[in-house]
Amino acid sequence: MALQPHKSNLPPTLEWRDDTLYLLDQTRLPLESVVEATDSVEAVWRAIHELRVRGAPAIGVAAAYGLCVAMRPEREASREAFLARLEQHAAYLDSARPTAVNLRWALERMLAHARGASATTGAGLYAALVAEAGRIHHEDVELCAKIGEHGRPLIEPGKGVLTHCNAGALATTGIGTATAPLYCAHGEGASFRVYADETRPLLQGARLTAYELQQAGLDVTLITDSMAPALMAQGLIDLVIVGTDRVAANGDVANKIGTLGVAIAAKHFGIPFYVACPSSTLDLRTARGADIVIEERGADEVARLAGRRIAPEGMKVRNPAFDVTPHALVTGIVTELGIVRAPYEANLAALFAKRAAA
Amino acid sequence: MALQPHKSNLPPTLEWRDDTLYLLDQTRLPLESVVEATDSVEAVWRAIHELRVRGAPAIGVAAAYGLCVAMRPEREASREAFLARLEQHAAYLDSARPTAVNLRWALERMLAHARGASATTGAGLYAALVAEAGRIHHEDVELCAKIGEHGRPLIEPGKGVLTHCNAGALATTGIGTATAPLYCAHGEGASFRVYADETRPLLQGARLTAYELQQAGLDVTLITDSMAPALMAQGLIDLVIVGTDRVAANGDVANKIGTLGVAIAAKHFGIPFYVACPSSTLDLRTARGADIVIEERGADEVARLAGRRIAPEGMKVRNPAFDVTPHALVTGIVTELGIVRAPYEANLAALFAKRAAA
Repeated sequence: MALQPHKSNLPPTLEWRDDTLYLLDQTRLPLESVVEATDSVEAVWRAIHELRVRGAPAIGVAAAYGLCVAMRPEREASREAFLARLEQHAAYLDSARPTAVNLRWALERMLAHARGASATTGAGLYAALVAEAGRIHHEDVELCAKIGEHGRPLIEPGKGVLTHCNAGALATTGIGTATAPLYCAHGEGASFRVYADETRPLLQGARLTAYELQQAGLDVTLITDSMAPALMAQGLIDLVIVGTDRVAANGDVANKIGTLGVAIAAKHFGIPFYVACPSSTLDLRTARGADIVIEERGADEVARLAGRRIAPEGMKVRNPAFDVTPHALVTGIVTELGIVRAPYEANLAALFAKRAAA
Repeated sequence: MALQPHKSNLPPTLEWRDDTLYLLDQTRLPLESVVEATDSVEAVWRAIHELRVRGAPAIGVAAAYGLCVAMRPEREASREAFLARLEQHAAYLDSARPTAVNLRWALERMLAHARGASATTGAGLYAALVAEAGRIHHEDVELCAKIGEHGRPLIEPGKGVLTHCNAGALATTGIGTATAPLYCAHGEGASFRVYADETRPLLQGARLTAYELQQAGLDVTLITDSMAPALMAQGLIDLVIVGTDRVAANGDVANKIGTLGVAIAAKHFGIPFYVACPSSTLDLRTARGADIVIEERGADEVARLAGRRIAPEGMKVRNPAFDVTPHALVTGIVTELGIVRAPYEANLAALFAKRAAA
């Protein structure tokens, strides 16, 4: 099974091998490409906590394997002792990044699977956990592939595609979400240009997106966030595709800070603006974007760069991590079930009905 | 004569004292505030060349005083020998930044003044040069003050003002161009908020604008360029005011990369977008923005930050230094002669007729 983009020089985001979880340390990219064996539950906790593995889907898969790492020494235990230890380790891993929805989701799924397993020994339960983590991993790969399949026709030969932040292979265990159509088109030999916004303040576009697309052999050009409108004015950008952290029931899209400006500029120049995500990111319980609470992060992310101060001491800083793009600026939402278009309220509800029926 | 914003803790951009030119080293801001005595023509050349003094108006004034520094040792010379040396030094200083229009303009004005002076001795010519440099300096201060006066009514109490890059006191020897209305309003005790875009890639907004406004006691908040649209959506920004490098006859505005995105977002949210500049920046010989050649700078400015690599080796980069904002997005152009509004072609021509008549 090809878990990663074809022919990329980049190691996989994560790998399960010899009862050990191997993680690509994303904090050291792009300067160093280091794969770390995380052979204790504490090592997995630290890797998630310190963002060495990041991106909601990738965190979920890492946590599932993390529980396997945690329970490997307990294979001699009785069923009861094994399940009791499993709950402790799950609570511990859950504390690595308390706000990551996929982290808790994966841990709860692993716990439920173990409890429901018929195995009467620690060794049997351990085998059941490893199998379930593999399924979570496989499903993530499949979701990405399907998003890529549905988004593939958007990528036309010779055209320019802009993306913002990293909704790439590095944020998942597959070919990413926003990047999935790009990898699919590239895999079929299509020739097109990609522009990656560097994505201040944390530079995920420069450090991760530009890097992973370069390593996979795509024609990628790095720009500062402020350059995208000028490139649009020059006719270099024909399509925008970004990821998202949450989509409201009315189609409003929360994503990395800067996405709103890209969407407004795309509208101004008549350029299609697409959002790519698994349907699990569509949150029908949130009526509209204004209901989404936006995390405000520390001033140092803006006032410092790579450890160096770039603004004067005591400078007042705003640092919202996300912004909300109103649905009126969104051309379509690419999911594993197909592309959803306006009117979003009706069409997102219909998508969920379709998913429930499947 | 108050040459700098009232009550700022910042040393002046430049100062002429004891027959020596003192320059604030802007490359070391905001970490260090160092004033350098440039007591040789070579030292002035290096300061201009290495951007220790930058901003078109400030470079012009520095070059004028630079010629005084150059000619100070020639006060014993005959008129003929003095003028011959003066031409050599002017050509040398002109080579410090060949594309800076104000540099050549100031040097030519100094040369013409010396040639036209009645003084028959080196000492007399030197005194004439010092007086002319002082006039160039004074005129720059006056231009800024008048731009401030005309732009002052745009700043309403309690409102938020966004600026991009540095068209501030540090780019001139007065209170700046885009910042002039802010300093005037602040000087009158008005209370309002300023947001400074950090202005990637070279961070003039973070290093210079945020710094000089902070030092002058204004309420300034630093943001990344990507945050401006989100702050506009939150209703925090009521006015945008930026500088410009060149305005075409039809009102199209060339300014630091990222200005176009700010203008598009301002239009989207119905926020007035003003440009501030001396009338010498209005270039009626350039018909429209598309005729302005945009300088493309080196990849390292984007791929590195403060000397550190932030993007992978070999990454393709675009780095246009400026973009063009079409006149349809410009609410008005604030000059020393008043605010020009659409239709720009007619009203800019009328402004020049008025200036010629004055």
